[in-house]
Amino acid sequence: MDKLDQEFGKHYLIEMIECDSEKIKFVESVRQTMLRAAEKSNATILKHFFHQFKPTGVSGIVVIAESHLSIHTWPEKNYAAIDIFTCGKMDIKTVLDEFKKGFNAKQATYTIIPRGF
Amino acid sequence: MDKLDQEFGKHYLIEMIECDSEKIKFVESVRQTMLRAAEKSNATILKHFFHQFKPTGVSGIVVIAESHLSIHTWPEKNYAAIDIFTCGKMDIKTVLDEFKKGFNAKQATYTIIPRGF
Repeated sequence: MDKLDQEFGKHYLIEMIECDSEKIKFVESVRQTMLRAAEKSNATILKHFFHQFKPTGVSGIVVIAESHLSIHTWPEKNYAAIDIFTCGKMDIKTVLDEFKKGFNAKQATYTIIPRGF
Repeated sequence: MDKLDQEFGKHYLIEMIECDSEKIKFVESVRQTMLRAAEKSNATILKHFFHQFKPTGVSGIVVIAESHLSIHTWPEKNYAAIDIFTCGKMDIKTVLDEFKKGFNAKQATYTIIPRGF
């Protein structure tokens, strides 16, 4: 993507692959990892909520002063899709490590998209 | 991006440019437009949350059965950053039209990123 005239932040789209399905089935462990990762991203947490799909699978959002983090998990595929939009400074490696540790993920890939126009 | 082996949905990153700043300053009008757009996207709304920044500016999330919609507004720049992650079918043109109408935006651009691995 070309350099933006006005950039308002970076959007990180993160694919967590070969996760331990037990870690991404239910709200409790997903929330724990998300909040820890949000802290590591230097975010100021405003609000969070997590939805439990039946029988398993979680959608979660953390609204931060700098924008948001989201997660959607597919335990049957050992996969979680995360996105982080932040207009603050963040060390993506530290945040990724937190997710990998929390979900026992073997692989993580990400794409960074600058937001603005 | 190469074709994915496993695709779990599409992530639309939408830039709303030259919005009417009055339409994106406060929660009420932003929520109205977001919920209308979510309906037009064929989403099943599970929960929504909107945060008012002082003096103006809004962050909002709509959690849907198919994933989520988010918005962050910068009224002083007449700009709103939206993302929609859906594993369902969605007509992006219809959804964009709803946002353009709701925010009196002169321009809208978007990027589509397939999610998965």
